[in-house]
This record gives sequence, structure tokens and C-alpha cells, in this order.
Amino acid sequence: MPDHPSPTTPELAVGLVGYAFMGAVHSHAWRTAPRFFDLPLRPRMRAVAGRDAAAVAQAASKLGWEESVVGWQDLVARDDVDLVDVCTPGNTHAEIAIAALEAGKHVLCEKPLANTVAEAEAMTAAAEKAAANGVLAMVGFTYRRVPAIQLARQLVADGRLGEIRQVRARYLQDWISDPEAPLSWRLDASLAGSGALGDIGAHIIDLTQFITGERLTGVVGLTETFVKERPVAEGFSGLSGTGSSTERGPVTVDDAALFLGRFSSGAIGTFEATRFAWGRKNAIQLEINGSKGSLAFDFEDMNVLQYFDAEEDAVTAGFRRILVTEPQHPYVEAWWPAGHGLGYEHAFTHQVVDLVRDIASGTQPTPSFADGLQVQRVLDAVLRSSAAGSTWLDLPAS
Amino acid sequence: MPDHPSPTTPELAVGLVGYAFMGAVHSHAWRTAPRFFDLPLRPRMRAVAGRDAAAVAQAASKLGWEESVVGWQDLVARDDVDLVDVCTPGNTHAEIAIAALEAGKHVLCEKPLANTVAEAEAMTAAAEKAAANGVLAMVGFTYRRVPAIQLARQLVADGRLGEIRQVRARYLQDWISDPEAPLSWRLDASLAGSGALGDIGAHIIDLTQFITGERLTGVVGLTETFVKERPVAEGFSGLSGTGSSTERGPVTVDDAALFLGRFSSGAIGTFEATRFAWGRKNAIQLEINGSKGSLAFDFEDMNVLQYFDAEEDAVTAGFRRILVTEPQHPYVEAWWPAGHGLGYEHAFTHQVVDLVRDIASGTQPTPSFADGLQVQRVLDAVLRSSAAGSTWLDLPAS
Amino acid sequence: MPDHPSPTTPELAVGLVGYAFMGAVHSHAWRTAPRFFDLPLRPRMRAVAGRDAAAVAQAASKLGWEESVVGWQDLVARDDVDLVDVCTPGNTHAEIAIAALEAGKHVLCEKPLANTVAEAEAMTAAAEKAAANGVLAMVGFTYRRVPAIQLARQLVADGRLGEIRQVRARYLQDWISDPEAPLSWRLDASLAGSGALGDIGAHIIDLTQFITGERLTGVVGLTETFVKERPVAEGFSGLSGTGSSTERGPVTVDDAALFLGRFSSGAIGTFEATRFAWGRKNAIQLEINGSKGSLAFDFEDMNVLQYFDAEEDAVTAGFRRILVTEPQHPYVEAWWPAGHGLGYEHAFTHQVVDLVRDIASGTQPTPSFADGLQVQRVLDAVLRSSAAGSTWLDLPAS
Amino acid sequence: MPDHPSPTTPELAVGLVGYAFMGAVHSHAWRTAPRFFDLPLRPRMRAVAGRDAAAVAQAASKLGWEESVVGWQDLVARDDVDLVDVCTPGNTHAEIAIAALEAGKHVLCEKPLANTVAEAEAMTAAAEKAAANGVLAMVGFTYRRVPAIQLARQLVADGRLGEIRQVRARYLQDWISDPEAPLSWRLDASLAGSGALGDIGAHIIDLTQFITGERLTGVVGLTETFVKERPVAEGFSGLSGTGSSTERGPVTVDDAALFLGRFSSGAIGTFEATRFAWGRKNAIQLEINGSKGSLAFDFEDMNVLQYFDAEEDAVTAGFRRILVTEPQHPYVEAWWPAGHGLGYEHAFTHQVVDLVRDIASGTQPTPSFADGLQVQRVLDAVLRSSAAGSTWLDLPAS
Repeated sequence: MPDHPSPTTPELAVGLVGYAFMGAVHSHAWRTAPRFFDLPLRPRMRAVAGRDAAAVAQAASKLGWEESVVGWQDLVARDDVDLVDVCTPGNTHAEIAIAALEAGKHVLCEKPLANTVAEAEAMTAAAEKAAANGVLAMVGFTYRRVPAIQLARQLVADGRLGEIRQVRARYLQDWISDPEAPLSWRLDASLAGSGALGDIGAHIIDLTQFITGERLTGVVGLTETFVKERPVAEGFSGLSGTGSSTERGPVTVDDAALFLGRFSSGAIGTFEATRFAWGRKNAIQLEINGSKGSLAFDFEDMNVLQYFDAEEDAVTAGFRRILVTEPQHPYVEAWWPAGHGLGYEHAFTHQVVDLVRDIASGTQPTPSFADGLQVQRVLDAVLRSSAAGSTWLDLPAS
Repeated sequence: MPDHPSPTTPELAVGLVGYAFMGAVHSHAWRTAPRFFDLPLRPRMRAVAGRDAAAVAQAASKLGWEESVVGWQDLVARDDVDLVDVCTPGNTHAEIAIAALEAGKHVLCEKPLANTVAEAEAMTAAAEKAAANGVLAMVGFTYRRVPAIQLARQLVADGRLGEIRQVRARYLQDWISDPEAPLSWRLDASLAGSGALGDIGAHIIDLTQFITGERLTGVVGLTETFVKERPVAEGFSGLSGTGSSTERGPVTVDDAALFLGRFSSGAIGTFEATRFAWGRKNAIQLEINGSKGSLAFDFEDMNVLQYFDAEEDAVTAGFRRILVTEPQHPYVEAWWPAGHGLGYEHAFTHQVVDLVRDIASGTQPTPSFADGLQVQRVLDAVLRSSAAGSTWLDLPAS
Repeated sequence: MPDHPSPTTPELAVGLVGYAFMGAVHSHAWRTAPRFFDLPLRPRMRAVAGRDAAAVAQAASKLGWEESVVGWQDLVARDDVDLVDVCTPGNTHAEIAIAALEAGKHVLCEKPLANTVAEAEAMTAAAEKAAANGVLAMVGFTYRRVPAIQLARQLVADGRLGEIRQVRARYLQDWISDPEAPLSWRLDASLAGSGALGDIGAHIIDLTQFITGERLTGVVGLTETFVKERPVAEGFSGLSGTGSSTERGPVTVDDAALFLGRFSSGAIGTFEATRFAWGRKNAIQLEINGSKGSLAFDFEDMNVLQYFDAEEDAVTAGFRRILVTEPQHPYVEAWWPAGHGLGYEHAFTHQVVDLVRDIASGTQPTPSFADGLQVQRVLDAVLRSSAAGSTWLDLPAS
Repeated sequence: MPDHPSPTTPELAVGLVGYAFMGAVHSHAWRTAPRFFDLPLRPRMRAVAGRDAAAVAQAASKLGWEESVVGWQDLVARDDVDLVDVCTPGNTHAEIAIAALEAGKHVLCEKPLANTVAEAEAMTAAAEKAAANGVLAMVGFTYRRVPAIQLARQLVADGRLGEIRQVRARYLQDWISDPEAPLSWRLDASLAGSGALGDIGAHIIDLTQFITGERLTGVVGLTETFVKERPVAEGFSGLSGTGSSTERGPVTVDDAALFLGRFSSGAIGTFEATRFAWGRKNAIQLEINGSKGSLAFDFEDMNVLQYFDAEEDAVTAGFRRILVTEPQHPYVEAWWPAGHGLGYEHAFTHQVVDLVRDIASGTQPTPSFADGLQVQRVLDAVLRSSAAGSTWLDLPAS
């Protein structure tokens, strides 16, 4: 059993901004990480900030934060907070994260880094300036920390796939396939930046670049909004419930985004993000072909990585269903015996573990804000390509 | 968001005995349940008991218990403990649980209830006596609380399968397939009672009875110990590590146990528990056929339930892969959006939720000690049948 | 491309008895084998025999036989027939096959070899006598010739699984799950011998013995007839259609048969044959665990063999989904490129290929009648064990 | 049992051009169709044509053709041939098919219809002219006749998917992933037209258009040749064997082709054809999302269609694994009982059945040459788009 941080282990005082879905998962991760992993700093869940005093107080109690604060500005200004964890919609990321970095707080910012390239550039500049003072910033492409994804990265990095030739990546959901699903901030371009593309497409851009160790160098995109107007939900508050209002409002983001791309090595890829794939709930489906083998992954069976080794005898070659629950697999030894699967939130706990260790050792955590900016540039290029009638756009060397 | 128990919500002070694998999962459940579910009592993680003072103190710190106690007797004797959670090996269950019940503590006892029918009978008698005073006891057949299993039970209870005709149940692991895997308490009959049968076979007995709502009325068994001697591990401490010692000791439990059985309705079943199925890590594989449909489940893909509805048109009939992650599914609404899978430990959190609610309302939780005793009688009959050369044994009406 | 038998290649004149489902598949195999495989003898489809003159004449035309004959006796008596292919119900196998062997004809007899051990013994004696004169007999356990099954046998024979420890075998169908499915000869003990057990259970006995290279040495069984009476179909003719008659007749065979068994090496197994597993259409599900690995197969995905190699690194170990369509796989080179799957009838074509080659070289084909007799003894023991209240029965060393 | 064509049934005399892989499958289909299906015309396998006299004579004997002919011209000129079946490489299709049509022969032409749009236009013009005289032409997009694909089409046509919104289609193979796989005519643009695109991409264009009942109206493409030079095989003869020669020649076709497209209804799609996906042998993977449900198919499990019905209760909704082997399924009743899967070549037999019936009734068979031309235009647009740096190209209304 790993040692729990003793009372003499230095604290890392954390402040959270936002306490909806993402805030709840992050809270769970901060609570849970030190119970299963040895950490060099003791996370202390100091305060959570929100706009509504009663709601944020209730959230603090429920999620395990010592205090609640109205307004992120007060949180950022506190002396007793070392790290600000930003779980708000994308349009607020830049302002909060930059202020926190300037106040000398480490920052963990949910993805996508921002809603625009300009904001992401400003955030990256702020992060680089802060880094010079030992203040660190990380963007939350959390799916990297699913053990099967880490294993995929290791296999590629170890050369088990040879040269990467092809990537195919899909992120399929169906939660607004029903035209009567209500408007939410996620369907409003002014708040969300883009639709399926930025929300879930960002993940498959990050994941394929992470696993291959390459960058996308050009794309051609095609986006579509199948349902142009939707009922306005009371409170306009998001993922659940069907609006009873008869008012309808415009959907200003993409329902689905497709693109083709080329990677720095010359590998080519197909990408698709959609919220209209009936029956697919959270299907991050990745497949990578190299000169020596292939990998396949589907988040709906998240404890499994499929691996084909082309150097095996043809008689017994086949995709191996690796159940990524062995103690030898990334992060797994801290949890349960083989075959006792992990769930969605474990990746957030792993994210906390890696971030705390990096902060303790003064190492730049990954993905950095620069990595987040690069993803933002890909997203932006896909939207511009699509708007220009699906024309190829080269991406700047980052 | 559910309300967190307010400071005025009454407490339920919990004491844990044992802090190895099971103790760690139970601790996680006590910590986590109130963060995601509305509970009528506030669990307070009062103390953990163990034999070694330093180790138990470290466990208390790591797992989140306020205090550590040497020896379960001191824990049971405390006035400030309302519930004793027993996570020790099976040979100690009877003594601890009976003492706790007699001391007026509610008891959650890990499965199997005991190592012998006699012990289980004594525990059940104690539980029934305690129940008269409002003191409640439950046995931890936790897999019942996997959402897909609850859904299976609901579909059967709703008549979606019609009359149950056949059951096939396997619990396949491979962790001692290697003859050099060391001896542990789980391979010693005096500590573990039986091998694969009691450890994992008990689960499939409970699960198939739970889902079908029936009881086994007779069995015929066949057990085998493939590897008769194993290296003695230093410290003889269990699941991990390979003993470097040259000493070898006898395996006194079954490596695999097979049996056929008949249920109260006349349905028939095949059962198999083994630790020698290379490649199967924690494969609880269940299939149930009724007059109107079928269900299938595999814990290695634990967020899925397969369902075949025989009343569908033959043209489009087929096993449906139900991803049991919808808010309409049991327990799921408290967690994440659809498609964001749960893991092994969630079932333990659900167990805490159900138990706390039952205690608050004075309802007998299930599975009761009587249910645990009945499973113990089946296990005992399988062993006796096997020892008698695989002869059918009827089970008493319970 | 292999050479087609030239006009100078000696003929093998074949006569078929029975032209229902099995007769149609056998006819396809006789027509097709020489088109894809090099054969040392040219099969000539000389005549088909049946009871109804018009029907058998039509069958001859449809299935490609030169002539039709009324009554198997006339077929057996013909000088211009070298081999008799017996595709009638089990109760007629002994009489026809023995007569054919005595008349000096090679015999291919559908499984199960007979309906009783006594018949099977007489057939085996006749086959052994005939063999002394170079007349050869084979029983049609055709599933052995599915490429994935052959590959499984090869892997075991090559030692890839090490010592065999456990076998689990199921043959699941659902075609009489509906209580209104009509009576057919397959549900009449006097014609079919037994129900699911002899019809499909025989296959999994043969397959597991074939793959492991071992024999069952003892069994304990449990059989059940869920639906005791059924509508009498007009013409009482079998698998398709729902009887409109209001008459009902008794089902005199088992609907499901379960048994446990021990193999000659000490390995243990679970077996199940049923026609009541809604949603399973022809699911021959086999899984074999050895000391060095595991195999798994499901006929509903018949071009796939799953293989777990326990000697792989735990990091990348996993069941491999071998698509058994490579030219290096058994029989496959004669067919299509990789990934172009084969179907049910291909195994029958392979059976013809192997049989013709054995006849040409004077080699005893397998499975022999003695092999069929041994399976019959297992079937008989399962029925007797079940009738005796599920008592273990040892099988004679064969 | 269906009636076999009686001697009085009119003949349909068939001549085959080409006897390699495709010729062998077509021959099997002509031999087999009348044995399982009622046909209004009796196919007579009159002659096969090729360039090498000895080889074609051997092929005739092996594949079951009455005569062999040197040169397709002689075959086309014969009075005793009613239908010419063209199984040669794509560069010869136009010349042979047009000559045959002009000679008054029905034509079945393998896909892709031609190597260029100009050729395909000429062929379509010839077909339309011939049709006026009752002479019919069909292109062999055979995968349409896989039962699961037919079922997919039926479900869409019946409105079970609602409006089609998204299509994703992949055709993945790996047979030239190895850089040492030799050159063959399929890698030579002058013979094959294009590489993966025309060979296998053509199929997924046809299949998605067929299933949805829509046409592609615009595309943007990206193609790649990963291995630019390969060993020259002796005889340069195709799919099997590794060239021992040290000579290397250029690959002049695409190894992989990706494209995005829009359908006539506004639906959008991603497409990918590759021969470099290690571990995927013949993986035609289709997924279609409509407003009311989804379908998914993978040819590597060709007897299965996955179907998600969005109108089901969320509690039990899930992709159904429909085993397309029921007598109610397209073509299946002629074959085996449920669960006894079909293989690759069955689709060719179904193609013969449909074609013979259409010829007998004077109905235009589908897909017509015009359909083949339209696919050719899509292929051409993908190549031109890719060559122009991945720019969107609209397709003409066909």
C-alpha cells in the first residue's frame, strides 16, 4: 500500500471554478487521487467558486470543498490557493486562466483550451511567461490518461507499430439526434465556440496526435447542422431534460464535423465528430495502422486495447483484445486486480496524479497550453476549410 | 445535484475490520457514496481495525478513517460505532459478525458469509435475533449492484423473459494458472473454506438466484485441484508477487469447481468457477433463457447487458447490446452522461447507498445473512457431491 | 489452379440415401469438391435413393444425381456404385450402412452413428470387417472440417496449449423454444434416439475430443423436456412451418441436456446442448484452457478462432481474433483471398475431399465408425446418468 | 424443395471471359444457382475464353465449362452464347462488353465498370442501345447481394431509419502493407485505372448509395501511395507469392484513398479504401445514421447486421446483432437453417439468380451500366479532387 501523504507533506491548495458535470468529476479526482496513489504534495480542496451563492455553497458541501466563493475573481485573488482548476464553459477560459497565472497560481484548464485561436494564443503566452516563474499550466485532455490510451502511446513510442501510415478517428454520440432535444450552451457558438467539433472533435485530434507523437499539418473539413432550430429549455442549462417551452431558438454550431488530415510524418487520417450517431453514446473509436502493426480502441469498451502485430506468423496472427487491467499497465497497479475494470472518472484521477507530481518536481505538465493552442488551430482550420467549401488548408508549423 | 447530507443529518458511524483489497474498496465506497447520492444518514468513517498497529495506522491515514484500532474486539466494543464492516478472510467472519451484532452494531459482512454451514447458521441466528432489536445485517454479494445486473433482475421481474428455463454461469479467472504462483490464504482450506468455489463460485450462485428470483434445489458437482503444491510465498500474503522461496506447500482447496443444478421453478443450470482459464481475468459470464427471451452478461464488459426479445419480428430480432449507462438505468443517474462507463468499485458505492437507506428506514437489507447461509448450503452441497463421486444432492427448502 | 480430374482419373461412383437437409448439403459437397480441390478420384454422382418415386426423381434433377432409385436396397445392390452416402434419420443408419459395407461399398454415414450403442457396435464390427477388404467407413462429424476447428486441433497437437485442463462446450439453438413449434421426427425418440443430446450434443462431444486428442472417461448428466406436448404437424416433416392441426402429441426426447465430464488426461469439462436458448441459432461455443494458453470458438462467427498465448508478455497478451481465412490455414488456399469468409457447407466439401483422398490411398478415414461408437457410448452414458438421478458413470476404455 | 429447371425450361447459354479469381467465383455461381433456387431459365455453361489455349482448356475442365475458346472475340461471335460474363481486368471491359452487346448478347460485367469515365460512358450508351432490343447489361457490384446488405436496404426503404443523416464507410485490407509484396496488374494504373480506390472504394460507393437509395453529389479526396516501388514478380501475375526478382518497378496507383462526400438528400459521409490496414483482411465496414435509427455492418462478420432502433425505450435500446440467417431474410430460405452462415461466394450465386430472373422477365437488372458509370464518375472526381490538392468537386446530376 502506498503511503498516504503524511501531515508533513507539503499541501497543494486547490480552488475550483465551475461545479457542473466537469466540476463534479474534477472534485472526485482531487478527493480520490491521494487515496490510491503516492503523491508528493497533499491536495487540499480549499474552495470552489461560482456565480450563485446558495448553489455554490451547496456544491462545496456536496463535492467536498472547504469553502465556497462567489465569483472566480475572489478565488484567484486568495493567497491560500496554489492551483486554479478551470471547469467553466470555453468562452471564459482565457480570462480566468490568464488571471490565475498572473496571480501566480498553477492552472488546470478544461478543454478545449479556448473558443478562439486568439484566446488560446493569449493563454499560451501567459503560460509561457508564468512558467519562467515556476508557475505551471496544463490543459485537460483527460482521455490521454485512460490506461488503454497510455498503452497505445507506449506501443507506438516503442516502435511496435513501425512507421505510422493511417489514422482513423471517430467520436460518436447521439444525445441531440432527437430534434426536440433542447438548446443548451453547448449549441450556442458564442458560448461553446463550435459544436461537436470543439466539444468532442478536439479530443480525437489530441488523442491521435498524442498516440502517434505527430502533428496534423493540413486538413480539409465538412461540417453540418442537421437541426437548425430547437426548443429553448427553461434555464437553458444543458445536457439533460427536454424543454417544455414552445419557444425555439437557432442552433449556431455544427452537429457533425468531418475532416481529412495529414500528419507531420506524411500519415493520413479521417476524422469525424458527431452528436447524431443514434446508438453511439460516447464512442471514441480510434484505429492506427503502421508499417508493423495496428491498434484499435473504442471508449465504449474502455478497458480494452486491440493490437495487431504484423510480425506474427500468419497462422496465429490476429487482433489481440488486451484487457488493460494488469498491474503492468499504466496506472493500474494502484487500483484493483486484473479484470476489475476502471470507469470514466479514473482518467481524471490519473490527471491529478500526473499534474501534482509535475508541480512537485517543477516539470512542465502535458498537454501544455501550447499543445491546447495547436489543437485550437486545427479546430479553427477545419471550420475555415468547411466555410470555404471544403478546401485544403495547411497548418502552420507549431 | 442531490443535496449533500447537511450537518443536521444524523450520522452513521462506521468501523472497518480488515484493510486489504476488500477493505480498500469498502473505504472508497464509504468515502464516495455521499458525494454522488442523497443519503438519509451521514456515513462517518470512525475507525479501522487490524492486527498490526503501524500498518493499521497507515491504512487509516491512507483510506480516510479517523482512527486506527488494534484488534477487532476493541472496535466492536466502542460506543461511537454504529456499523461494523467485516472485510477479513472467511474463517473470521462468524466470530466478528456475531460479536458486533450482539453489541448492537449493524453489520456488513463480505462474502462468502462464512467458511462452513455451521458458522453461517450461527450468524444467521444472530442476525435474526438482532433484527428484532432493529439491528440489521447484510452480506456483501456486491456484484448484484452492478447496473447491468440490476437491469437484468428488473427485466426478469417484469416478466420480459417469461418462465426461466435455463441458466449458464461461469466465473473464469486465470491468476493461478501458472504453477509457480505462490500459496496464499486463498489456497488454504482452513482459512478460505474452499477455493474457486467459495471465492468466486459463490458470486454466480448468488447472481443467478438474484436475477431469476429462484433458489437452487439440487446440485451435482465436480471439483479439481490441478496444481497440488506451490511455492510458499514469504509472508504468505496473497494475490501478488511470486514466492522466491524453494519451500513448497500443499494446495488444499479446489482450483476449479463445476456443477449442474436445478432451480425451484424447474429451470436447469450449468455452473463453473475456475482460476485456470488463461486469458479470462474476471469473467463473470451469465446467460439466462426464458420462454420469452434471453439475457447475457460478461463482467469483462461490465457496462453492457445483452437482451434478446423473442417477441420481436424474426427479421429484426437479435441480441441487443444495451449500454447500461443511461440515466434511466439503475444507479446511473447519479454518475455521468450516457456512454461514460462505470468501473468495478461503483458496485460497492451502490451497496453503501442501499445499505444506508435501509438502515435509515429500518428495512432488512438484501442479501441478508439468511441469503448468505443459503448460498453457503449450495457451496457445501457442491463440495459434498463432488467428494461423493459426483452424486446428486437435494438442497433443503430454505 | 489445381488440375481438375482428367477423364483418365478413376471414378468414384457415389450413391446417396436421403435428400432432405443433409442430403442437399452432401450433394453440394460432391458437386463442389472437385471444382476447388485436386482429387485423386473423380466423384460421379450416380444415383440418389428415397421412398417416394416422384420426389426422389425431382431431387435427383435438382441436386445433380444422374438417376433416382426407390428404396435404398436397390442402390446398395448396384454394381455401379462405389460409395454409399447415408443421410437418413438415425434409426435407419445401421441397416443401410451394414448392408452397404457387406456389399463392398465404402460408406459415409451422417452422425450420430446410430440411435443406440448396440446398433453402433454392429456398425463398427461391420466396418472393421469391411476394412480388412479395403472397404472404408466414415461418420460425418463434419464440423471437424471447419477451418477454425482444424486450426484449433493443430495448435493443441503442436503443444501450444500445453496440458489440457478444462473444456467448456455448448451447442445452443432456439428453434423449438416456441411451445407451438410442431412435432417432427427429431422430437420422437423412436426415430431420433435422443433430442438435443444426440442431434447437437454429439457434435460437441466429438469436437472437444477431436481438438484435445482425448476421450471422455466419465460423465454425469441432467436432461430436461420443457415442453411435453406439441402440435402434430401435417406430414410430420420437420424443421420448418408451424402445425395448424389441433392434435397434440408427446415429445419423447430431451429439449436440453447438460453434463459434466472428465477426459482421459484428467481434464474436466462442462457440456450443454439445448434447443431452448432464445437468440442462439447455431452457437457451437467451445473454450479450452491448457497450461500454456486458451482457445475459444463460436460457430456463429465460424471464420474466427480466438487464441490466448499465456507465454506472451502480460502487457500485450490478449485473446487474438484469428480470422481463419489465410492461405496458410487448413483448406483455405483452395478458396478465396484472406477475409473472404467461408460458410456452413464448406465443411461438407472438405469432408468429401478428405474422404476421397483416403479412399484413393487406402487410408482409414477419420472419424471412423469406432469413433462414432465411442461418441454413442458417451451419449448413452449421459442419458443413463440422467435417468438415474444424475449419478456419475464411468465410461469403458474404448 | 424448388423445382429444378426441367429439360423443357429454356436455356440461357453463358460464355465467360477470364478465369482467374473472379472467373472462378462466377463459375461457381453459375453451377450452383440452379441447385438452390428456382430459375426460369436453365443456365448452360457453354464456353470460357482466355488467351492461353492450354490454360483455358484446363480452366474449362476445372470450372465446369463445356468448351474453351482462345480469345474473347470468338466467344462473342458465337451463335450459341446468350450471355457474356466479363471477368477480365478493368482496362478490357469496354471493348469486350460493347462488342458483346452489339452482338446481341446480355452482359454481366465485373466492377468497376471501366477504368475511365469515357469508357464507362461508351459502355452505358451501348447498354442503352441494346436494351431497346431486349438485350440487358448489369455490372457486378456483388456485395449488394449479401443478405445483410439486402436487409439493410430493406430497412432503409421501409423508413426504419427515417431521414439519412450520416454515412461512414471503410473498406480495409492489408495485403500490400508489406513493402516486399510484389507488383501486380492491380498496382499498375494502365491496367487497373486506380488502386484501392477503384478496386475496393468502388464497392463502398455503390453499397452506401444502394442502401441509402441516394447519390453522391460532391466529394473531396485525399489519396496516398505509401510504397512507391515494389519488386517485380515473375510473370507479374497478381495477388499471391513474393517476387524473388531484384528488379523493382513503380507503383502507379493509390495505396489508400480517403474522401468526404455529400449525398443527394444532404446527408454527409466519410469514405476510406486502403490496402494498408494491418489486420483487416476484407473489412467492409459500413455505418449509417438516420433520424430514427442506425445500421452497422462489417464484412468480416458478414452474416450479421447491427441495427439500433431509436424508438425503443431507452432502458432496453441497444444495437441488435441480427444474425441474417433466418428464412425470412433475403435469399436465405434457399440455403440452410438459421445460424448456418453463408460465405463470400453466396452473393455471386444470388447475383446469378437475380440476373437470370430479370433476363427471363425482360426487366432491367440492377445495378445497370448507368449505375456503374455513376460510380465511375465518383471515383474520377475523388482522383481529380486529390490531384488538385483536395478541393471539393461537385458531381453532375446523373
